[in-house]
Amino acid sequence: MTDHNSPTSVGIVTPQVAHFDEPLPLSNGGQLDQYQLVYETYGQLNADKSNTVLICHALSGHHHAAGFHSADDKRPGWWDHYIGPKKPIDTNKFHVIALNNLGGCHGSTGPNTINPATGKLWGSDFPVLRVRDWVNSQAKLLDKLGIDKLAAVVGGSLGGMQAMRWTLEYPERVGACVLVASAMKLSSQNIAFNNIARSAISRDPEWHDGHFYHVDSKPRTGLSLARKIAHVTYLSDDVMGERFGRELKRGNFTLGTHNDYEFQVESYLNHQGESFAETFDANTYMLMTRALDYFDLAREYGDDPALAFSHATCPFLVISFSTDWRFSPERSREIVQALLAAGRPVTFADIESSYGHDAFLLPNQRYEALFRGFMDNVAKSLGRNA
Amino acid sequence: MTDHNSPTSVGIVTPQVAHFDEPLPLSNGGQLDQYQLVYETYGQLNADKSNTVLICHALSGHHHAAGFHSADDKRPGWWDHYIGPKKPIDTNKFHVIALNNLGGCHGSTGPNTINPATGKLWGSDFPVLRVRDWVNSQAKLLDKLGIDKLAAVVGGSLGGMQAMRWTLEYPERVGACVLVASAMKLSSQNIAFNNIARSAISRDPEWHDGHFYHVDSKPRTGLSLARKIAHVTYLSDDVMGERFGRELKRGNFTLGTHNDYEFQVESYLNHQGESFAETFDANTYMLMTRALDYFDLAREYGDDPALAFSHATCPFLVISFSTDWRFSPERSREIVQALLAAGRPVTFADIESSYGHDAFLLPNQRYEALFRGFMDNVAKSLGRNA
Repeated sequence: MTDHNSPTSVGIVTPQVAHFDEPLPLSNGGQLDQYQLVYETYGQLNADKSNTVLICHALSGHHHAAGFHSADDKRPGWWDHYIGPKKPIDTNKFHVIALNNLGGCHGSTGPNTINPATGKLWGSDFPVLRVRDWVNSQAKLLDKLGIDKLAAVVGGSLGGMQAMRWTLEYPERVGACVLVASAMKLSSQNIAFNNIARSAISRDPEWHDGHFYHVDSKPRTGLSLARKIAHVTYLSDDVMGERFGRELKRGNFTLGTHNDYEFQVESYLNHQGESFAETFDANTYMLMTRALDYFDLAREYGDDPALAFSHATCPFLVISFSTDWRFSPERSREIVQALLAAGRPVTFADIESSYGHDAFLLPNQRYEALFRGFMDNVAKSLGRNA
Repeated sequence: MTDHNSPTSVGIVTPQVAHFDEPLPLSNGGQLDQYQLVYETYGQLNADKSNTVLICHALSGHHHAAGFHSADDKRPGWWDHYIGPKKPIDTNKFHVIALNNLGGCHGSTGPNTINPATGKLWGSDFPVLRVRDWVNSQAKLLDKLGIDKLAAVVGGSLGGMQAMRWTLEYPERVGACVLVASAMKLSSQNIAFNNIARSAISRDPEWHDGHFYHVDSKPRTGLSLARKIAHVTYLSDDVMGERFGRELKRGNFTLGTHNDYEFQVESYLNHQGESFAETFDANTYMLMTRALDYFDLAREYGDDPALAFSHATCPFLVISFSTDWRFSPERSREIVQALLAAGRPVTFADIESSYGHDAFLLPNQRYEALFRGFMDNVAKSLGRNA
């Protein structure tokens, strides 16, 4: 683990806030009259403003992708393994923007912020969002920062969905696209898991139809269950076996009552669920999983993914992980096939890893080498254009 | 679907009840002073009482494995595809016993029956049970019926765990063993899913520490969530895709609010969960999933499955299904390897099926042919012994 003094760390970073007073039209037909986005930047914007890499976050992500918020900060940002000096997204070369998406719960306008029309917290009245709404709001952020074109848009999982949508909606603004452990649409099984997670939240008596803030309450139980379900699906059977096996945390195999024993995996999951429930917002969880479920890249292109990607103009890097069963290698292969059919240049690797979907966040030599190689080429092409 | 007049149906059947007044010692060190088991039988016991097949049920199963309870009954027993005249477990040849396990909620002594010591429903005070307790109580039922030896013990999933334990605890009483979609122990991932299901129940405010009966309550929400989680893991990603895809049940893709749309898979799952919560007992669910988690065939044999199976004396049929990821083909291969290492005769097939774990309950030609072939040999060997 790096610390903030490490030569490969972006060091101590400070979130910034961008306010927008021009209404943002939304895909549900409504609009957000005003909003703010919290973001961080790493590395320096170059003279011709051509070296920006936009990081799109996944379900539980946020703007703090790399570095530390203070010298005492124990853990770096969520993608610190891949963003920093001499890392694949090399901040000696690139200017990186990572934001908290609209509807998020880490400082950007979302359900846990004030609805100016009522003076109260939005709660579940916050507008329904789709992936394209995030992409549009991200484009507004670039406008505000005076950045016409991205060197690359990069995302894993739900972040990859945003990156894909970028290449269709704003092809002229995207120099390259990196899609890690993503999919053009969720499978029925994936929707089912999200449904169960949402049910756990919405059936929690503390949910109060999404207006729990007003009664000083929180659907902790539901959110904890939701996280536990999701967490198990992000891990592989293999890695759970290696990490926890069938070891007991407490109790013993010859037992008395129903409650005096616990497997290690149970203790781990309970802890994961409870910590998440303290820090995440239940309305954001509902909103983000719905956006995941409804994302369907090619739906408006007659369900023809090749036709969809014919609107893209940039080269792509697509990466999947062998034991990822939530966003399986097959989903990435479908992306690759569509890109090839559309005549787009694409580099693809299915990386051997035992870590399931979580692999996209974790150190892995082959993943890192491939990612680095692609981004180095992106950096070189900037030099050529300049 | 057969009806009760079909020549391959066992017809209309009536559950029977066996009462036991001799205490049953339990693996937790305690005992049940008295208990009853509900069971059904199909086919005729032969003169030398050698043709009995015992059916062990899985998590949500019961004694009604075949036939109909009345002429109006719309659905037959849970394994009616495989039990009946000229079916793999051919009731023209075999005398079949199917019971509701101790701790169940379909008439056998369990949490929703009266604790004679208190005169109140047991609830969560019902003793913790292990798979071996079921096996021992099943042996008592055979004693009562005057059956020394089974032609075969048969079970799928958790039922297979009971069947395996039978071959080690009572080898002299087992003529053959059929294990369908089972495992010698659950993986960490499986325990995790069971933990989440139990959390959903125990965190439901209607749970009341398992004594909800006394307050005229029921943890419907928790039990429904538990079932939804389990149900998704019993299906394959493929079959969910085929059956539900990404079709909407109601609403549309351009939407207004958070609640006016629903995928078909969500509607289906909600219905499954709610029906289950009406008919099943939450304490039984807790008890059965704990028995599943703790089952570990070889633990007391120094974690050596071959040593464990060296105590068995019968031939085995082991069947798995290609898309079953809850009790994967790999788990069945481990059983087969251990049986071979122990020198036991074993027939094994991994059946191609898109139905996941649920395949063990569903019609499938290859599964049926293999099952029939093995059981025909069992029937022939009875003839030879007689």
